[in-house]
Parts: sequence; C-alpha cells; structure tokens
Amino acid sequence: MLKGKSLIDPMDFSIDELEEIFKLADDIIENPEQYSKIAFGKILATLFYEPSTRTRFSFETAMLRLGGQIVGFSEPNSTSVSKGETVADTIRVVGCYADIIAMRHPKEGAPKIAAMYSEVPIINAGDGGHQHPTQTLTDLLTIRKIKGNLNNSTIGICGDLKFGRTVHSLIKALSRYKNNKFILISPNELKIPNYIKKEILEKNNIDFVEAKKLEDVIENLDILYMTRVQKERFFNEEDYIRLKDSYILDKEKLELAKKDMIILHPLPRVNEIDYEVDEDERACYFKQAKFGMYVRMALMAKLLGVV
Amino acid sequence: MLKGKSLIDPMDFSIDELEEIFKLADDIIENPEQYSKIAFGKILATLFYEPSTRTRFSFETAMLRLGGQIVGFSEPNSTSVSKGETVADTIRVVGCYADIIAMRHPKEGAPKIAAMYSEVPIINAGDGGHQHPTQTLTDLLTIRKIKGNLNNSTIGICGDLKFGRTVHSLIKALSRYKNNKFILISPNELKIPNYIKKEILEKNNIDFVEAKKLEDVIENLDILYMTRVQKERFFNEEDYIRLKDSYILDKEKLELAKKDMIILHPLPRVNEIDYEVDEDERACYFKQAKFGMYVRMALMAKLLGVV
Amino acid sequence: MLKGKSLIDPMDFSIDELEEIFKLADDIIENPEQYSKIAFGKILATLFYEPSTRTRFSFETAMLRLGGQIVGFSEPNSTSVSKGETVADTIRVVGCYADIIAMRHPKEGAPKIAAMYSEVPIINAGDGGHQHPTQTLTDLLTIRKIKGNLNNSTIGICGDLKFGRTVHSLIKALSRYKNNKFILISPNELKIPNYIKKEILEKNNIDFVEAKKLEDVIENLDILYMTRVQKERFFNEEDYIRLKDSYILDKEKLELAKKDMIILHPLPRVNEIDYEVDEDERACYFKQAKFGMYVRMALMAKLLGVV
Repeated sequence: MLKGKSLIDPMDFSIDELEEIFKLADDIIENPEQYSKIAFGKILATLFYEPSTRTRFSFETAMLRLGGQIVGFSEPNSTSVSKGETVADTIRVVGCYADIIAMRHPKEGAPKIAAMYSEVPIINAGDGGHQHPTQTLTDLLTIRKIKGNLNNSTIGICGDLKFGRTVHSLIKALSRYKNNKFILISPNELKIPNYIKKEILEKNNIDFVEAKKLEDVIENLDILYMTRVQKERFFNEEDYIRLKDSYILDKEKLELAKKDMIILHPLPRVNEIDYEVDEDERACYFKQAKFGMYVRMALMAKLLGVV
Repeated sequence: MLKGKSLIDPMDFSIDELEEIFKLADDIIENPEQYSKIAFGKILATLFYEPSTRTRFSFETAMLRLGGQIVGFSEPNSTSVSKGETVADTIRVVGCYADIIAMRHPKEGAPKIAAMYSEVPIINAGDGGHQHPTQTLTDLLTIRKIKGNLNNSTIGICGDLKFGRTVHSLIKALSRYKNNKFILISPNELKIPNYIKKEILEKNNIDFVEAKKLEDVIENLDILYMTRVQKERFFNEEDYIRLKDSYILDKEKLELAKKDMIILHPLPRVNEIDYEVDEDERACYFKQAKFGMYVRMALMAKLLGVV
Repeated sequence: MLKGKSLIDPMDFSIDELEEIFKLADDIIENPEQYSKIAFGKILATLFYEPSTRTRFSFETAMLRLGGQIVGFSEPNSTSVSKGETVADTIRVVGCYADIIAMRHPKEGAPKIAAMYSEVPIINAGDGGHQHPTQTLTDLLTIRKIKGNLNNSTIGICGDLKFGRTVHSLIKALSRYKNNKFILISPNELKIPNYIKKEILEKNNIDFVEAKKLEDVIENLDILYMTRVQKERFFNEEDYIRLKDSYILDKEKLELAKKDMIILHPLPRVNEIDYEVDEDERACYFKQAKFGMYVRMALMAKLLGVV
C-alpha cells in the first residue's frame, strides 16, 4: 500500500512498490480516459523554492490529467519564507489546503523535514544536488517501456558523473535489478564518486568499467544516458569551457552504436547531444519527458489512494 | 442576500450576514462533497500585488474545492501596472474575464477603489497595514466552531497590538457579540491605539484590561490570540531585537492556563509560540488555517450566489 | 480545417478561416454553457517570457471556460532558459505535457521557431514589437459584433502609428475586407511606416488620409481606434513628455463624433482616453476585452479540434 506515503529518496520504495507504479503507468498510457477523473476533488500544491519549469509542468499536468487541481509557486520570493517561517510550519499550513505536495528546494534535506511534519504525502521534486526521485522513476519507466524490462542491459552513462544527482540515483536504482552492467564515461575531473563505486557497485557485485571517450565504448551499449555538464557545478569558467564539449553525442559517434540502443537525457540539454541526433529513432529523450508525466500520474494516484 | 456584494472591511457585513456565512461553512465542513461542484464555470482571479502564499493558497484552494477555477498573479512586476495602468482599469478588464476577484495590495484603500469600479465581487485579501477581512472571518469561525459561539469569552490578545491589523479587526468584530472581555498584552511600545480603546471598547462598554506580561493574566483567558512581532513594522533593528522575544508562549506559561483555553495565531509565526506548544491540544492555529479555507469557500459561494 | 494549425501572424488565416472562428465565437457568446466542457482533458500552457497579465488571463480564462485546464509561467526567470535551453527544446518538452501553447516572447520570431518544432498548436501571444495576432482577432470580432460586419467603414487610427504593432496588423486585416477607408492620425514623429502605405494601402487601392489632429477628422469616423503612446518606444524622455498628451480623446472632442461611432483601444491605456469618456456608450474598449476572451475560446476550440 503506497497510500499516504511520501517519496523523498529514490530508494524509498521497494522493487515491488515500483512495479506497482510502473504497471499503473502502463495502464494510464493505454487508457488515459479511464483515469481522467479519478483525482477529482484532490489538489496538488507545487512548492518550488527554486525554479524548474519542466519539473513543475510535469507534476502539474500529471495532476490535471487525473482530474485533480493545482496551486503553487515557482519562486521563493513570493512565499512566506521571507517572513521567517520554517519549512515545518509552511508544510503544515499547506497540508490544510492541499491533498499532496511536490516540493523543490535548494537545500538538501528540506523535503525530508517537510515529510516529517506533513499530514499529506510529500514528493521530493529535487533538493539541491541531492535527490530527484521522480527523475529516477521517469528513467526506469522509460527503459522498461522501450526495452521491455529493467534487467540484462549494458548502460553507458556519459558526462558529469561527479555532481549529477540523477546519475547517482539511476545507478543505485538499476543496481537492484538483474545482470546490468555500467560503462561510466567522463573526464577525470568529473568521475563517479568513490562511495558509489564502493558502496553500490562493488558491494553488489555489479560489473562496471570507467572510460574516457564515448566513441571507444558506444558500440557495447544498450542504453546511453547522456547528462548535461552544468556550468554552475564548476569552480572556474576555464575548466568549464575546456570540458563541456568533450562528451558530445553526434551523428558520427552514433554510427558506431547498436541499432536498438536507446539514448536518454534528463533534459534540459545544452549542447551535449547534437540537434541532428534528434531525428534518429534511437533518440528517446523527448519520449522520456512524456513518460515522466505518466509516471507522476501513477505515483500521485497511488499516494493519494485514488486507484 | 450577499450575492454580488464585495467584502472590503471586516465590518461590511451585519451579524446576520456573518451568521449566514458561518452556517454555510458549518455545512461545507460536514458535507464537502455536496459543494464540490457548485461553482462550476466560475473563475476566481487572485490579484496579489504583494506576495502572500498562505492567503493566496487559501483563496485558490477554496475556489477549487467549490468546483470553480482560478487565474492569478502573485507578484506586482508581472502585471500591467508597470505600463502605467490604474487599478480601476485593471479591475474592469479582469472583471471581463473572471467572476470574482481576491485582491491583495500594499496600498491602503486599493481594494475599495477596485470595488467601486468592478462589475464582479471584490474580496480584500489584505491592503497594507489596513484591513484583512477574511482573516477576521477565519478567526470568528474558528472561535465559533471550537467554543460553540462568539459570546461570553475572555480574550487575551498578545504581542504587537499597535500595528497588527488582524488584532484591530478582531476586537471590532468580537465587540459586536455579547459579554466578551479583552485582556490586551503588549509592551508599552506596541500598545493598542487609543482610537480602538475609545471608539470601540469604551464606546460599546466592553470590559478590557491592559497587561504587560502574559504569565500574569493567562489563567483568566478562554482564548489566547498570539500575534507575530513583525520586523518590518519597527523603525530600528535594536528595538526589534529587544522586544521580539518578550511575548513568547511556551509550555511553562501554558501550564498556568485553563484546560480548555484555545490558542490562535494568524500565522506565519516566527518564534512567538514555542514549537513544543504545537503538541498541546489547546493549540488551534493549524485548525484555524483549515477553517480559513472553509470560511472562504462559504464567503465566495455566497458572493457568487451559487448556494 | 483549423485543427492542429498554429497562429503566428495575423495573416496566417484566410478570410474564410477567420469567419469560421468568428461564427463560433458568436455561438459561444450566445450559448456559453454548451461549450463549457468541450475542452475537458485538454491543457493550455501559457509560456510568457515577458509579463502581460491581461493577455495571459484572457487566454487562461478562455481555456477554463471551455472546460480545459492551464499551466504556465509569467516570468522568464522561472524557466529553464537560464540553464541555456533553446526555445526548440522547451517547446518539444512542453508539447509532451500540454495540448496547446500560447507563447509571448520579447524576441521577434520566437513563436515562429516554436511552431516549427512543436507537435501541438502554438499561438503567438505577442513577440516583441512584431505580431500579436489574437489582438487583431479581438479587434475584428469586436467591430463585427457591434457594426454587424467588417466592410464599409471609415476607421480612424490615432496615436503611435509607427511602433504600434496592433495598428499595423489591424490595417492589414481590415484591408482584406470591402470599402474600408482609413484616417491615420498621429504626430509627424509617429507616422505610419512607408511599407504599410505602399505595400498594403496603395497596393490594394485602399483610401487613406493622414491627419495631425483628432478634432479635425473625428466627425467622419465610424470607428476610432485609440492607441497608447508607449514610453518604452521613445528614445528620450523629453520627446515622450512633449508628445504623449497630443492625442487624447476627451468629452469635448467626442461631441464632434457620430452618434454610432465606436471607440476601441487595445488597452492598457494610460491617459490617451479621458476617464469621463468611459461613461459614453460609444466607449467599447471594455467590451472589446471581453470579446478578446471569446475569440480566444473560439480560436483554441478550433485549433484543438474539439468543435
């Protein structure tokens, strides 16, 4: 039973619970009209203390497509925070008005505190560089829908593996399924942190390789997960300029890849995937955005207990 | 008949009209489903020229829970105001689109001007340090629901009694009911203004006492209304720091109070009520927030004429 | 068939297509309840990279009054743009969530690019000083509703004819109908651009006169279209102050006009129409705002293909 639960960390739910959500998402995708009124009378509050139009829209349209309604803010300055109120108080008041809350916050741990005080389910919609669990649900649903299941794949993850929170969560999540292998492609400066290698990959006996160049390994991949090199993560501009173009997927590199490899990206992209790649049918990142809406529909329907 | 009226000043409505709203709120609380579609096809515009997430959410969720819809802004800079338009023109245009308007404005009197030009009902959602009538409705409904009626209580009001607009309105409103007494607890610098004493309390022969310390009088109270010491009301930071902690409700002081005293607060609080008090069943300020939504549902249903 | 089309330029639709929209608007005005659920399950995204409350509210309430839903932003800084994403990518992602998009952008041509990449209809809600096609639809519907048709009128256009985009579009649009004449009233500095004279008026053998003073020509007009002298279009403040009051409609000038002349204005006005004129029944600019909502209802119903 997921009813009434919160989702703060991508690992909060068991594999069975995830499967419950994915199966519901499958059915919503097949029969959207059957779900178009199930959340009638329910209200989602989107509390975005940090702007993220994409994520906010995904939550909001998900709720609307379930027949529910939305209120929210997308900027911290339009909140009572400026009057010195704590997150705990804000959440308790918003919980008087709304039935479920999606919260994005620049401070790590803020959604966790919110969940401690809330009488309604809290969904972490991103807390600083920490967690972004609905992105992980999105990634998993996308792979599951296109590949058929979440096992037996060789997954290449390319770009900023040091700071990219979606990457860490994806590795953790896919490590729970069977026979997955990872090829971790990044410059030295942005390699995967040691704790992921030790505590997740090695501890669970997961096969992984580190690589420096995308073109050297792309032929082995079933899934290629590209990530944005975020300017704001760099300590100086020089490093950023030197590195940002190093891990770009273009048509040339793509020719070396399997015909059924799928390309994912959490978006927004800057230039790490060339626009000419968009036409290739292996490019699944816009589909992925759509699956993100469907998985949020399934998630909220479950947490609200309306299915 | 409240249909088509505006609510600008807490005293705009007669006691009978208030009773009509409170009775409807009672019924909405008991049978929310019966009211979940009555405002279908109606649109509330929330015009917040000054941010106030809490108040905005309360109005918006109230409208949504009646089956209506919402549009709005929460920041002055995203409006046509920057192009030099008057409030009168804005209101007339918004009145072409929406069926009812909730307006918060930093300038005293702006909602009153709006109501003069509007063809749809205007609700004052706070105008500067002036009026905030739906907060008063909230306070009254809360007392009425928990105490059973609005008469025969000793009400302690603690904190900033000089600048706190909700306090002035509450005193005026409760002075219209029978046998209420006030104990006004504040530092010298933040005492209740003379015109409230003379024109409201003395004129209506209402019993009141002024006190300096909460602990000296708390044992006599049926209702304790705590208020925030608003930093922005002080002329210098030094005064603020000296005074802000003077009137804090904690567990120790609460031990002296009656077992059925109720604690109210318009929220947000900063530190004037200790967090440990939240657990006490006399703490009613979160319930109060919830009643705020219900009373706005009743108010809007009446002004729209959909019940 | 307008289903699936975008509206970027006021001239994108043929006269027949416009007529289809206007006829639907007529019917919506007569029987709003019949249309109050036709867009159930559809979502409009309002992407306002530049604030415009009036236009945004008009689109949003239009969608809500069709039974659809809305998501949106009204400020550029709350978007993913700050992370370096292109309009093309934003549109493709938003198109995964929403069924139709209204976009306002400070850059000319941005909505056109959006339409190239979008899988859902795009409506240009204003792109810089360039186009604002739904304003033109609004102007046309208003004239058609009040005058009965779009032919045989003498239209005076007064104010800033150089920079005013709505004026240029209106002239183009009305030039497609029969026997219309224009009287173009402006100071020398803000005269209509040559290309409008040459490529639209002269090329189509449309009668037009240029005038310097409103009082000299007002008696001849069937329609008077007033425009705001926009401060932001002037190169220096001195010029603005000297010119802004030159073309003000007041009661005195209005006495010279025909009894059935109609006064239009795209709003917001600053002081180019005296407030005392509002009482005159020839003042149609608030009706015009209302027609703006109805024409957007008709437009979106057609583009969504729900009628």
